[in-house]
Amino acid sequence: MKTNPHFYPVILAGGRGTRFWPLSRKRHAKQLLALDGTQTMIQQTVARLLPLAGPNRFWVITNGDLRPAILRQLPKLPPKQIVAEPAGRNTAPAIGLAAFFLLQRDSDAVLGLFPSDHVIADPAQYRATLSRGIEIAAAGENIVVLGIRPTRPETGYGYIETGSRDAASPDQQGKSSLCVRRFTEKPDLATARQFLDAGNYFWNSGMFLWRADTLANALREHLPNTAPFLERIAAAYGTRKFADTFRKLYPKCENISVDYAVLEPRSAKGEAQSRIFCLPSDFGWNDLGSWTALHEHHVAKTRPGDGSLASASGSFAFNAKNNYVHAPGKFVALVGVSNLVIVETDDALLVTTLDQSQDVGKVVKHLDEKKLKKLV
Amino acid sequence: MKTNPHFYPVILAGGRGTRFWPLSRKRHAKQLLALDGTQTMIQQTVARLLPLAGPNRFWVITNGDLRPAILRQLPKLPPKQIVAEPAGRNTAPAIGLAAFFLLQRDSDAVLGLFPSDHVIADPAQYRATLSRGIEIAAAGENIVVLGIRPTRPETGYGYIETGSRDAASPDQQGKSSLCVRRFTEKPDLATARQFLDAGNYFWNSGMFLWRADTLANALREHLPNTAPFLERIAAAYGTRKFADTFRKLYPKCENISVDYAVLEPRSAKGEAQSRIFCLPSDFGWNDLGSWTALHEHHVAKTRPGDGSLASASGSFAFNAKNNYVHAPGKFVALVGVSNLVIVETDDALLVTTLDQSQDVGKVVKHLDEKKLKKLV
Repeated sequence: MKTNPHFYPVILAGGRGTRFWPLSRKRHAKQLLALDGTQTMIQQTVARLLPLAGPNRFWVITNGDLRPAILRQLPKLPPKQIVAEPAGRNTAPAIGLAAFFLLQRDSDAVLGLFPSDHVIADPAQYRATLSRGIEIAAAGENIVVLGIRPTRPETGYGYIETGSRDAASPDQQGKSSLCVRRFTEKPDLATARQFLDAGNYFWNSGMFLWRADTLANALREHLPNTAPFLERIAAAYGTRKFADTFRKLYPKCENISVDYAVLEPRSAKGEAQSRIFCLPSDFGWNDLGSWTALHEHHVAKTRPGDGSLASASGSFAFNAKNNYVHAPGKFVALVGVSNLVIVETDDALLVTTLDQSQDVGKVVKHLDEKKLKKLV
Repeated sequence: MKTNPHFYPVILAGGRGTRFWPLSRKRHAKQLLALDGTQTMIQQTVARLLPLAGPNRFWVITNGDLRPAILRQLPKLPPKQIVAEPAGRNTAPAIGLAAFFLLQRDSDAVLGLFPSDHVIADPAQYRATLSRGIEIAAAGENIVVLGIRPTRPETGYGYIETGSRDAASPDQQGKSSLCVRRFTEKPDLATARQFLDAGNYFWNSGMFLWRADTLANALREHLPNTAPFLERIAAAYGTRKFADTFRKLYPKCENISVDYAVLEPRSAKGEAQSRIFCLPSDFGWNDLGSWTALHEHHVAKTRPGDGSLASASGSFAFNAKNNYVHAPGKFVALVGVSNLVIVETDDALLVTTLDQSQDVGKVVKHLDEKKLKKLV
């Protein structure tokens, strides 16, 4: 594997993942759970990138609630590069901060931005795609986004509309990069079907590659009020003033996603000018957005007879099928029930359906409102 | 309340109640659970009879698995009168044994036979009915059965067909006793509807009253091989030989219910000869035969808005209704589910539907077969 010594993975790990309640909690969010296998989601994220960059080149942006657990789960990463935001400000400031940190140590730094809670079925293919993307990003003022080839008319994701083939990109078995025409919001079902049929739309994976200076310049251009705060925080990094500076200035940054702040306005300049490229990706990506998505992921991997999957000390099903059960340490009996999601922890029990598990966030909202802090 | 000094309540407490798994267990059967209120079912059974008979007049027939817990739950009853059968032999030998025990100490003894796991909404009315029944039973070779006036075409119970009014019975606000014409098996739905419409059919409550000598004679007549064993066991009661005699002879008794052994053949003699009387009863009887029956009992008592009843440390329901939840110590969240039964214990979790909870016994059958003894 050809590696780039200027490539730095930046892992975004500040999300709550409330749809995995009651397993996910404020101090133990989705990315810290071993939802698929023995490693946690963030451990898997790091492990599949390690062939491309040594542990010292990783940065993790998270929050104070999650940092202690992340330090425990990723003991090989430099603790100082596991950074807790004093306040959540969405992705643009988080990513910008990483860019300014890195610019100080490596003027040729190439940032890779990675969510911390997705699964990738084919890590070798994933790394091959990334290597190609790092090349493109390193070559100049390019932004590379990994676009997932859609397999269904999903309404839960943003889409990337692509245009012509990148002239500079050799066709590697149909995997040449494409110019990005437009980023779209989550579509309705009819629109999602059109996107799927059209063939030039991809799911926005949230994985981006760009040079640190390209990103820093983009922030100076698109977030002129926020960029100076980030530069001052980065300048204080490693000094006694850092914690204080970070705590005072970061909350003043705009609360905005990198998509809204940078990518959409930049793509509006037109294909030729924006220099945003989409790498079509086919490495078995799944964002595991809900218990239902996790269930489908497991069923696809294991294909059991009745489709009921019980993580339990034992189970018995009578006239029951296609249920997802997580109740470790319990014997679970299902009689006459189907398409349910049943999740049990020491202090909580959730019962919902595969159809309605996306509403589990409402439970957490209720618990927040009732200030039932131990349960969130 | 007029009480009869020769009245002895005999409580049958050997059942497993597997349909209340995972709460009910081999050593902690349904009658030992506080399914309705703070007292257990057997404690309620004793409490509502105490105004009719002091604690020293109670007998409990159970098995070795349940006896220790019953001793703990009923500390005021004489431990020697809580008798553990060496082997289950259905109701005829159990009741016969009680009859021979009692004949030894009181030749005018009147036995009342009571299941240990039913609820009675109106104990005062219940005792008034019993007092009338005790009078009738004490008067001669009569057998009195408490017949529950049916409120629905239930297919899960046996029925009693009644004939003419007992000539000797004064009409007490329509509650005079009726001659029993026939005991019937559990009917199909069409038959149950006919019974309901006919007006002269009652549910067999399993509660009977008769003199000990009447019962002893009936057993000698209908179970001539079994009665001598029971007499020999009763003769040994109170001696050093009792345990040994009981263990050796009781398993030789026929395994048969009192309904089949005595009541059905006797009723076949015809109304006039059989001297079996039915006391129509309206004291809010419920045998709580399943989680569903328990749920309906609770809903009828409490009438909550959405019908979901959660026994938990807290709960939240979204788009969910009419669920029965027992998960003490847990916060329970229900999202998009209805008509479920969810029961959690330290080692087990059951999820079924109100429609299918009668099949919970199949779980216990499975556990028995797999020899998962800790769970049964």
